[in-house]
Amino acid sequence: MNNIIDGKLYAQELNTNLKISIEQIKTKRKPKLMIIQVGDNLASNKYIKNKLNACNKVGIIGELLKFEENIIEEKLIEEIRKLNENKNVDGIIVQLPLPNQLNEKIITDTIDPSKDADGFSPITLGNVMLNNSNIFPATPFGIIKLLEWKKINLIGANIVIIGRSNIVGKPLANMLINKSATVTVCNTKTKKLSEICKTADILISAAGSAKLITEDFVNRDMTLIDVGANFLDGKYCGDVDFDNVKDKVKFITPVPGGVGPMTISCLLQNTFNLYNKKENL
Amino acid sequence: MNNIIDGKLYAQELNTNLKISIEQIKTKRKPKLMIIQVGDNLASNKYIKNKLNACNKVGIIGELLKFEENIIEEKLIEEIRKLNENKNVDGIIVQLPLPNQLNEKIITDTIDPSKDADGFSPITLGNVMLNNSNIFPATPFGIIKLLEWKKINLIGANIVIIGRSNIVGKPLANMLINKSATVTVCNTKTKKLSEICKTADILISAAGSAKLITEDFVNRDMTLIDVGANFLDGKYCGDVDFDNVKDKVKFITPVPGGVGPMTISCLLQNTFNLYNKKENL
Repeated sequence: MNNIIDGKLYAQELNTNLKISIEQIKTKRKPKLMIIQVGDNLASNKYIKNKLNACNKVGIIGELLKFEENIIEEKLIEEIRKLNENKNVDGIIVQLPLPNQLNEKIITDTIDPSKDADGFSPITLGNVMLNNSNIFPATPFGIIKLLEWKKINLIGANIVIIGRSNIVGKPLANMLINKSATVTVCNTKTKKLSEICKTADILISAAGSAKLITEDFVNRDMTLIDVGANFLDGKYCGDVDFDNVKDKVKFITPVPGGVGPMTISCLLQNTFNLYNKKENL
Repeated sequence: MNNIIDGKLYAQELNTNLKISIEQIKTKRKPKLMIIQVGDNLASNKYIKNKLNACNKVGIIGELLKFEENIIEEKLIEEIRKLNENKNVDGIIVQLPLPNQLNEKIITDTIDPSKDADGFSPITLGNVMLNNSNIFPATPFGIIKLLEWKKINLIGANIVIIGRSNIVGKPLANMLINKSATVTVCNTKTKKLSEICKTADILISAAGSAKLITEDFVNRDMTLIDVGANFLDGKYCGDVDFDNVKDKVKFITPVPGGVGPMTISCLLQNTFNLYNKKENL
């Protein structure tokens, strides 16, 4: 029995579909995503490379704007404002983390919400809560697409989310509430965590804690979504004790190859949605 | 043992404190709240009267702008824009429901977010999600104030919310998540509702269904918050089968006299917070 949800496969399928849609744009300019990087963080370099490659594959113009580590806030704000006004730019993202002299909130709030490809701005998140957006934070967007791909029922489903970050846990909870699921959001203060998780139809772990999810957290009918991105003994892994758990649930996402590729694919989808809105398509 | 949470009493206390704060404004103009009404809905008349009275008591200038039932959308939008530009106006609310020719979302979205005293705009709600707002939808705001007044622990508390509206359930869930509670949001599709509720430390019912909450939903250590506003046999009541439940929980809010008075008090607080921000106080 193969119960692995292959996020890499589905992301490729979505990217192929997106590529076809973008190829069909004949008369207009192509969608464009600007990535802003400050300094030379090694992990950021890798993430940005992946995003630019993905853009390239589907026909989105991906461009990196890289600034010196010691850039002052006013200068960076000025550069973002130029991109806000640039009619050829559809999406703008700032690769985090930023150096200490830069206020992350002030910088990201400078991005025009109509170019918010990450879906992190207050107005985007408010519209997500109100069920009135086609832009979503990319990781929650990818998780819901995976669940819908596998035809896993959400209506009335008992869904437990571990983690309440601004980019995963909270927006995801709002999106699943809008899908008529019964949603529980847990955090580090939650009492009897494994007990709460154990009865879930769908368990989504975004805790950032390797091997947190053991067999005590799962049941045979559960779909288990692993959003963790951890390193343990030099190896990249999720929140789930995968080898011990994978045969004790109905469906499970691997790390890598589960939620990760979906996140990048959804960033592309957001960029395309922003483009379409801008071009009235 | 008196286990009734007296929202009326606490709202009066908050209003008195607010009155004192407003009296201390010597050199500047007083805060002003504009209420927009279209037509002559009887329930709306009553709610508006209560709001205007409450404004009057604390020293906020409350003013009703009443339009004919058949006003066209463009005209109403124009009137709201005038209020947006009026420097003497701090808060603007539109009393719902609106007649059918008016698109509720378009109308309420016209209100400048910096004058959004109801806390219903996307940007306000996004900031609520991000834990970065001092304006909140008034009912959730009042519920949290009541819980904090009674020193009911929220950190790690197991809180169940029935209802997922844009003005109560969803913003409240985000606010409680930000307070480090473990939060479950239920809806009409939820399976085993009473079972989920029965183990909660705090149960908040915003279902709008009289006598939904019976003794099967509660436990002896529970705090039970009743947000229902229903009519049963001509009598105003909440969601809780009050007489049969009140002695089986630790704390309970009555209807009327629980969440209701707090909601109006929090509308005043929002108006004052908007005023302070505008005047840089």
